Amino acid sequence: MFKTIEWKDDRVVMIDQRLLPMEERYRVCKDHLDVAEAIRDMVIRGAPAIGVAAAFGIALGVQEIEEGADFFEAFEGICRVMASTRPTARNLFWAIERMKAVVESNRDKALKELKAIVREEALRIYREDIEINTAIGRNGEALVKDGANILTHCNAGALATAGYGTAIGVIRAAFEKGKKVHVFVDETRPFLQGARLTAWELKRLGIPFTLITDNMAGHFMQKGMVDLVVVGADRIASNGDTANKIGTYTLAVLAKEHGIPFYVAAPFSTVDMDIEEGSEIPIEERDPSEVTHIMGHPIAPEGIQVRNPAFDVTPNRLISAIITEKGIIRPPFREGFGTCLVT
Amino acid sequence: MFKTIEWKDDRVVMIDQRLLPMEERYRVCKDHLDVAEAIRDMVIRGAPAIGVAAAFGIALGVQEIEEGADFFEAFEGICRVMASTRPTARNLFWAIERMKAVVESNRDKALKELKAIVREEALRIYREDIEINTAIGRNGEALVKDGANILTHCNAGALATAGYGTAIGVIRAAFEKGKKVHVFVDETRPFLQGARLTAWELKRLGIPFTLITDNMAGHFMQKGMVDLVVVGADRIASNGDTANKIGTYTLAVLAKEHGIPFYVAAPFSTVDMDIEEGSEIPIEERDPSEVTHIMGHPIAPEGIQVRNPAFDVTPNRLISAIITEKGIIRPPFREGFGTCLVT
Repeated sequence: MFKTIEWKDDRVVMIDQRLLPMEERYRVCKDHLDVAEAIRDMVIRGAPAIGVAAAFGIALGVQEIEEGADFFEAFEGICRVMASTRPTARNLFWAIERMKAVVESNRDKALKELKAIVREEALRIYREDIEINTAIGRNGEALVKDGANILTHCNAGALATAGYGTAIGVIRAAFEKGKKVHVFVDETRPFLQGARLTAWELKRLGIPFTLITDNMAGHFMQKGMVDLVVVGADRIASNGDTANKIGTYTLAVLAKEHGIPFYVAAPFSTVDMDIEEGSEIPIEERDPSEVTHIMGHPIAPEGIQVRNPAFDVTPNRLISAIITEKGIIRPPFREGFGTCLVT
Repeated sequence: MFKTIEWKDDRVVMIDQRLLPMEERYRVCKDHLDVAEAIRDMVIRGAPAIGVAAAFGIALGVQEIEEGADFFEAFEGICRVMASTRPTARNLFWAIERMKAVVESNRDKALKELKAIVREEALRIYREDIEINTAIGRNGEALVKDGANILTHCNAGALATAGYGTAIGVIRAAFEKGKKVHVFVDETRPFLQGARLTAWELKRLGIPFTLITDNMAGHFMQKGMVDLVVVGADRIASNGDTANKIGTYTLAVLAKEHGIPFYVAAPFSTVDMDIEEGSEIPIEERDPSEVTHIMGHPIAPEGIQVRNPAFDVTPNRLISAIITEKGIIRPPFREGFGTCLVT
């Protein structure tokens, strides 16, 4: 099986997700600037994977700090670079905060020791992410009935995480338990994470699926062919409002219209307890060329106006449950999150 | 300005809509088989344009019937070829029925005269379509307020008709009346009629617009940036249920969720009084390669399962009004259609 991201001989290696499924090529990042560029250009994407990449990027950067330099100034600079890559994914900032915390509590250590501590913390974030995803799958598979038709959007699979996946993790856990499942995969324009990445992953896993364009989801729900929707998340406000890939909100409205459960699967680190509601989540606007071109080929007239918000916000009232490694959280979400925080 | 379709020196000339906006190339059809192929391959598309093309195709075919041959047998064969091209568009069958009726009422005429009559009827259908679209625009523009943000799907413009357009006709009429309008253009996967054709038309007309992917429509409605939705139609059942390009149903659900009016603009010939409701409308399933490839380039793994329904059905309860050349028809639609039929 492929590795989404890996720490190898003080380099960070990641599969180039812009080239999949046509080409399986790996990008080697030698410093934190390389990692930042890879996140910005979507060589790697998916909130949990971005978190791991940020931690790895910081660890790479720290390895290069020289004896005699101001460690903390350099470290802050590295963190700023990572924080500037993409604005929406909560896990990015969560990983940076965690790296800062470990440095803070080891301020008195010698440089060499500090470098090892920082690297070890990044690797711990990586390993934990896989464990967390496995737990999300284990918790969430109970919501998947035998014979279920599941609709998913974007890619919340192994490629969006250190491994296993969140939304795909739930599907995978049900499948591994012997349940018969079938997945409708939204192609997910503009970046085609569904057509390119989720289809590629599910094919490798042997999980039956059907690729559709995003605008077909409503039609298949209307025909009674979808039993549940499960998606990932980029940031969840403390009231449960969820930012996820553009198009998620539309699926939630459609699910409500058809009485279909709508689930969000994400590590608890995606929850941003510092914000009250979804309207406070910054939504990244990406380059118009992602809309006007597909795989480098133009599909629209030149010089036209385009909007390209990468995410939308699904209000909590449209979410049936949020599946985390700490358990399945149902509305009211603020209360559920609070309970998770103290346990 | 371009011509979508034209009768020229006993040839049918049409702009090749598969190549737009990258290339403006015209296809010359010398017989009805050429026209049938052009309809099937979507060189020409859009229900009213398909109707005109079918009439032209029949007229071309009739010109080739030789003295001494069984005219009526040959004519029936030509009509069968045209009817087999695409199953959903009502206007296709309407045009064929109209051509059959004119032949029927001129059974006693000599071959040469009959050929002229058939050609003249096809040209009449063509000219009427432009007049009808202009009337649809005139009727519909009253629904567009000054400063309106209008969302449209697929292409229901000049390219989908003999000229002027239905949904785009409404927008165009408002614009020509001096109203300030702005259009959100859904790219409309898989065939990209929005990105390729509507964007191209609106750019030529100088009507301000923003291209978005289909899955962004909900986001902009949620942000309060859409005042109304107007789309075309491929077939309307006698109760008002409307088959239109895949994705239309989702827009109607979203419009309802946000309290936004949802309008269908179509010639009255799109109404199929022979069927009770939308579930009786045959929905064309097109080739999977339209989903797995964009402009010939693969965007998904090979050998996967795909669904590609070209249309969906919007139930009458989600439609605020149907704009026709006979006026604006509001629910209950069956009554409204009945009134139109007797006037």
